[in-house]
Amino acid sequence: MEEGDRKAVDLKDGFLQIYYRLKSELLEDPAFSFTEDSRQWIDRMLEYNVPGGKLNRGISVIDSYKILKGGQLNDDEFFLASVLGWCIEWLQAYFLVLDDIMDNSHTRRGHPCWFRLPKVGIIAANDGILLRNHIPRMLNRHFKEKTYYVHLLDLFNEVEFQTASGQMLDLITTHEGEKDLSKYKMPVYNRIVQYKTAYYSFYLPVACALLMAGENLDNYDDVKTVLVEMGTYFQVQDDYLDCFGDPEVIGKIGTDIEDYKCSWLVVQALELANDNQLKILFENYGKSDPACVTKVKSLYKDLNLQVVFSKYESASYEQLISAIEAQPSNKVQEVLKSFLHKIYKRQK
Amino acid sequence: MEEGDRKAVDLKDGFLQIYYRLKSELLEDPAFSFTEDSRQWIDRMLEYNVPGGKLNRGISVIDSYKILKGGQLNDDEFFLASVLGWCIEWLQAYFLVLDDIMDNSHTRRGHPCWFRLPKVGIIAANDGILLRNHIPRMLNRHFKEKTYYVHLLDLFNEVEFQTASGQMLDLITTHEGEKDLSKYKMPVYNRIVQYKTAYYSFYLPVACALLMAGENLDNYDDVKTVLVEMGTYFQVQDDYLDCFGDPEVIGKIGTDIEDYKCSWLVVQALELANDNQLKILFENYGKSDPACVTKVKSLYKDLNLQVVFSKYESASYEQLISAIEAQPSNKVQEVLKSFLHKIYKRQK
Repeated sequence: MEEGDRKAVDLKDGFLQIYYRLKSELLEDPAFSFTEDSRQWIDRMLEYNVPGGKLNRGISVIDSYKILKGGQLNDDEFFLASVLGWCIEWLQAYFLVLDDIMDNSHTRRGHPCWFRLPKVGIIAANDGILLRNHIPRMLNRHFKEKTYYVHLLDLFNEVEFQTASGQMLDLITTHEGEKDLSKYKMPVYNRIVQYKTAYYSFYLPVACALLMAGENLDNYDDVKTVLVEMGTYFQVQDDYLDCFGDPEVIGKIGTDIEDYKCSWLVVQALELANDNQLKILFENYGKSDPACVTKVKSLYKDLNLQVVFSKYESASYEQLISAIEAQPSNKVQEVLKSFLHKIYKRQK
Repeated sequence: MEEGDRKAVDLKDGFLQIYYRLKSELLEDPAFSFTEDSRQWIDRMLEYNVPGGKLNRGISVIDSYKILKGGQLNDDEFFLASVLGWCIEWLQAYFLVLDDIMDNSHTRRGHPCWFRLPKVGIIAANDGILLRNHIPRMLNRHFKEKTYYVHLLDLFNEVEFQTASGQMLDLITTHEGEKDLSKYKMPVYNRIVQYKTAYYSFYLPVACALLMAGENLDNYDDVKTVLVEMGTYFQVQDDYLDCFGDPEVIGKIGTDIEDYKCSWLVVQALELANDNQLKILFENYGKSDPACVTKVKSLYKDLNLQVVFSKYESASYEQLISAIEAQPSNKVQEVLKSFLHKIYKRQK
């Protein structure tokens, strides 16, 4: 194993250890008098839904704070940055548990969705709510005395509001009423992605690190703009990989076409298609019949979407780099570049 | 109309006017760039779910603050107390929208549940989340500069956590696995009611008023205890009226027996029944067949539950009055007594 990889593994191990401490604290929260049954329920629910993801969002709080501080973290600093990282992972778990119910999904991270377990069912909706409620419990326990405590609460509240608003846009655009592809336009796509994904996945980890470093977020609107653009680029990659990625590498078989998703690919296709091709799209998009999926995929290839994506990727990268280099602080530049290099040209 | 009634109507009108201002502010929230469709969605969702209840929880913030202040409120004070009142009403709307989904309910306040509307469906889950997210948006806009702002955030967070935990207890006790009446015991009942209902319905309004009056909630643990007991008493009344109240007066036909609810009545019945009567309960509770419901109701009458309730009601009242009179502050005593007299011997 190479030096860099070993460091990443150690970091992830250290981060995971803190999950166990946070879970124990939540299972003994004095604000609720647990019964044995309810304590066990929460224990299982957390194990099933919180620690099993890639943990990129959470770990990036630690990475970002390390750069901003400009040196190794002591135990206390590592712990606090990890708590904020876990708060983001908890937020993610909360969104996923509820989104899976709303999307009527079957699997998540290679397992059945939580609400699909026979003992769970619709209780999952309340479990999602509980995951969300754990965040202020953890913040209160570990940050109550910090001067930036209230700003952490404000930050998590604002970002959650934006994510839920993005989810609303997505739901009323793609689920409400009859299927109507003509609603899938680039400004609609960008707005959904910005609110539903970019704020909590990209802005939130950096904002947490900035608050820990004693910064005032009002001075970092440009950083927010860059991170939201990066989040949009990330989601475009996600949409691209869903269709063109290697299932062996990304770990799942994409179903965006079957699921009638407002994907970057279909939005591009709608822009580029001629009348005949539009007809093919309208007739075949959102159908589970494999023949229909194949027709949509061939159309994407006829429209050269792989090349269109590749050009988009390069242009995004150039634009992001120049926006990053316009930032006054070198440390902030470093944080943003490290983020960008984690995702640029990713295959999974 | 009598003087007191007119005052109550004026108060409710004034309180409702503030709802319209808060709604307008939320529909122009700069943290999200609304489309016309999404603005209209939120507008309708709020109208359908927020202002149509009895508004007792919200209005009691104003009543309590008036007593604590010891005189009429100026416009600004009335406005701020009303905002907190509406935050509680929003919290209530959030719980009801999600509870109705989890309980698979059909009607709420005489109309179909929000999720039952054909255009809404499971989007209602996200609407519930949005209602919850509106609360910190309103608090941030109107209380950000107050010294007690962070305590308001902590308070709402803690009470929401307790309510969601109570809901979990209820769900895993009454929904999980096979129906098993033997789980319905008084300590279980009390714990569910305390967490699921009493904190947010009784403690929260008074705690909001105390914060506005500049008090430190750490000094009011006894007040919390009294209010949680009052909330329990309130829920017992609710359970009693579901079976023995006049549907004309309470505005709905109770279905706790059909729904297999962990009601105070069935818990009492299980304590008092002989073996033969237990058999009747086990065979008939939680069935929608009207003949089964009738058998359970006759059993309740055979067990004299009306008298048992009446004794419980008097004993609770005595106990609450003496706990109230042990409070050091006369104003606090007045707040608590005014609350108690709103609910004592209520018929609806």
